[in-house]
Amino acid sequence: MQKKGVKDMSNDNKEFVKEITKMEDDFAQWYTDVIRKTDLIDYSPVKGFFVLKPYGYALWENIQMFLDKRFKDTGHENVYFPMLIPESLLNKEKDHVEGFAPEVAWVTIGGKEELPEKLCIRPTSETIICEMYSKWLKSYRELPYLYNQWTSVVRWEKETRPFLRHREFLWQEGHTLHETAEEAQVETLQMLDIYKELAEDFLAIPVISGIKSEKEKFAGAEATYTIEALMHDGKALQSGTSHNLAKHFAKAFDITYLDRNGKLQHPYHTSWGASTRLIGAVIMAHGDNRGLVLPPRLAPIQVVIVPVMQKKEGVLEKANELKIRLEAKGLRVKLDDSDNYSPGWKFNEYEMKGVPVRIEIGPRDIKNNVVMVARRDTLEKETFDLDTIEELISNLLDDIQKSMFNRALEEREKKTYTASNLEELKTQMETSPGFVKMMWCGERECEDKIKEEMSATIRCIPFEEENLGETCAICGEKAKHMVYVAKAY
Amino acid sequence: MQKKGVKDMSNDNKEFVKEITKMEDDFAQWYTDVIRKTDLIDYSPVKGFFVLKPYGYALWENIQMFLDKRFKDTGHENVYFPMLIPESLLNKEKDHVEGFAPEVAWVTIGGKEELPEKLCIRPTSETIICEMYSKWLKSYRELPYLYNQWTSVVRWEKETRPFLRHREFLWQEGHTLHETAEEAQVETLQMLDIYKELAEDFLAIPVISGIKSEKEKFAGAEATYTIEALMHDGKALQSGTSHNLAKHFAKAFDITYLDRNGKLQHPYHTSWGASTRLIGAVIMAHGDNRGLVLPPRLAPIQVVIVPVMQKKEGVLEKANELKIRLEAKGLRVKLDDSDNYSPGWKFNEYEMKGVPVRIEIGPRDIKNNVVMVARRDTLEKETFDLDTIEELISNLLDDIQKSMFNRALEEREKKTYTASNLEELKTQMETSPGFVKMMWCGERECEDKIKEEMSATIRCIPFEEENLGETCAICGEKAKHMVYVAKAY
Repeated sequence: MQKKGVKDMSNDNKEFVKEITKMEDDFAQWYTDVIRKTDLIDYSPVKGFFVLKPYGYALWENIQMFLDKRFKDTGHENVYFPMLIPESLLNKEKDHVEGFAPEVAWVTIGGKEELPEKLCIRPTSETIICEMYSKWLKSYRELPYLYNQWTSVVRWEKETRPFLRHREFLWQEGHTLHETAEEAQVETLQMLDIYKELAEDFLAIPVISGIKSEKEKFAGAEATYTIEALMHDGKALQSGTSHNLAKHFAKAFDITYLDRNGKLQHPYHTSWGASTRLIGAVIMAHGDNRGLVLPPRLAPIQVVIVPVMQKKEGVLEKANELKIRLEAKGLRVKLDDSDNYSPGWKFNEYEMKGVPVRIEIGPRDIKNNVVMVARRDTLEKETFDLDTIEELISNLLDDIQKSMFNRALEEREKKTYTASNLEELKTQMETSPGFVKMMWCGERECEDKIKEEMSATIRCIPFEEENLGETCAICGEKAKHMVYVAKAY
Repeated sequence: MQKKGVKDMSNDNKEFVKEITKMEDDFAQWYTDVIRKTDLIDYSPVKGFFVLKPYGYALWENIQMFLDKRFKDTGHENVYFPMLIPESLLNKEKDHVEGFAPEVAWVTIGGKEELPEKLCIRPTSETIICEMYSKWLKSYRELPYLYNQWTSVVRWEKETRPFLRHREFLWQEGHTLHETAEEAQVETLQMLDIYKELAEDFLAIPVISGIKSEKEKFAGAEATYTIEALMHDGKALQSGTSHNLAKHFAKAFDITYLDRNGKLQHPYHTSWGASTRLIGAVIMAHGDNRGLVLPPRLAPIQVVIVPVMQKKEGVLEKANELKIRLEAKGLRVKLDDSDNYSPGWKFNEYEMKGVPVRIEIGPRDIKNNVVMVARRDTLEKETFDLDTIEELISNLLDDIQKSMFNRALEEREKKTYTASNLEELKTQMETSPGFVKMMWCGERECEDKIKEEMSATIRCIPFEEENLGETCAICGEKAKHMVYVAKAY
């Protein structure tokens, strides 16, 4: 294994790269270009309703697989609740209806007939699920309820953007019931931890975990916990939330059970969700001016094999043999032996698509019993020995996974600032946005001021607060918490 | 391994069994009782919108897993298309709109505002998918398109029944495009074959494969292929359909591409789907008066271990050890060590839930290094040696899978009749319904007559037609085909 250590610039196919706007020039356009060029998603005829194309959906399938296994390992079962919710149910929990009623889609006609009561397409399923839980639950012996569902939900957003804000998006929502407040809290935090594990270990995106302010919490929750990631442009992206709903919905929907002492009780309740927004996070936390950069554990194709001079005798046979060997190791491998594109075109194509590792194999390589290996994250190329190729590629993928995380962490740390007063906060947000740590009095007024003056929000009160001083950066009164402030998607 | 060969009647817990109506007395009630008692499904507040509870959803997950693997093995990729379809798209293909428009749900309000064009919740996705395909497809080099999606669809049915007829049901729908008519036909039949494999090898339900009559085919199809299963009550259940759509939708949606000769062409098109109806088929093809009988490959729990005298020292330890050993073999095992129910209660519970194999383990068994094993399909009990338990149980599960299929096949053969005239057909349908084979002239008039006079339908023209005579059983004119007639779900 001879390391070249040289950045590979040979395949700068200008024609291709020029179609992706540079992120330094226009980050929003860069984002749109990347998702369009890499065939992740497309716009449908209805605003905000997107088509997940095969490569985009494969990312979601891999996220699903990771989460579903973790949910089941922690005792959860999958279920399916109906997509339509009667208006009267949506109205049962006061905060919830205020939060969601303005942004739902209503079915008013079914089979040619006007419906007696309009039905909304679920914006989230607490209400229909609580209605059913209230029918089902009888005794403490049935608790906990540990259920999850994989569905789409609809929210009639004004502004929409691929992956980041859809009117219909795919997600999972967990809904659990517990005997005690402690158990509900443990569950809430356990699920947040699973999201953190997904973000950090699987998607290679470092996140800040914490609790939302009263203003930012879920409509109807006692407390909302969140993981927050930082994108290349210094904006935050909420990447998963877990809500401790206490007894709010249980009381509104009259969910009761006989406890260990034969007394009627309301159970404690949690819900938690993660969605296809995570794909937006992957694009904006790892992508570069050549396109996507996918972490190996997520990538639908982990290794692409591109034969060079593939018409020469033995090249395709050897490439195929290599594919079989790597697949036997459990790797996801594609051999692109199409004959209507040049190797150079293919190099660019798979770089753009973010495939973590490319292997080039040609007659000379075969003669020397080696292959040329290019890694997507650093664009470095190395020569690998064919005899031990499986192990070398496995190790390389592990290394890419780790170094992508470390690089993202470094970038986040570089873009994490502190502010001790409003002016500093404003200047920071205007000059180079990122996470800004500051002290906060806990009052809604100061929070509103941040929103009004710089369109930023308190992303969370982190689990690990630092002491940056004694007074609120906004009003100067006594500080209660350290918070992370950022502009956000 | 000492075979007892005695039916186990010892655990006839009357209290439990009596809650399931006998199928001989009232088949429809038996069906409802079984799904209610076994916690597969529940009614939501909206008619025809059902909740799939964990045990019911687990059946669907196992079906998904089987199909998804087969789809991917045959080169298909998953995608996701939006759930809402503008009215103008639904109207583009004439037969399709006639078939579906009367039974869709319409969204007319989004985010408090009346929509300029109403949107239907997909009853199936040909229209939205063709609209996107027409944007995407450019060249023959991109063909075939081999895509599938897992979603729910909504059809505003008048009469609804759990699993059999929902207003919202879960399914998959495949949508493919091809260069040639031959390829499209090969695809159509390949997918039907996968459904047949699912039904026969996985669900242990024998099916008749064939083609639908003009009257019964999918709205907009050139030809619809079907697999038809027979239920305990002699009614047929359509268990999967695959449509050759020729160029009907491609023309209506103007999907074109440049062919190998640089000429603009419409592609050939197929679609195919299977749904949660299959769970209804499993219940009604295998269930008995004790409840569900699940084929091992489908069963969420393949083996339940019930400890006897579980408070005696060593019993739970041994039961746990057994569980771990069986799980290491890849089996899905549950150990029910709850202490608030007697072993007898548990025996009944898991019998009702259709768990293929129950293992009883108590102090005496442990002393003798054996366990008592009961199989759900025949209710027979045997003593198994603990030393080789993994192999014995694996073989037993294989045997149950096979013998469930054979039993269902035998039953279907017993309930398959022939009729050579209208009177025979009517008498058969009235006295003991089942599949009736008959010759048919191919005319719609005769088909309508069957429907009017006995509410039965031609289920399909089977791939393997027998020659039962020269004349149509209904009109006496020259026969064109042999068909299967049945009352159907």
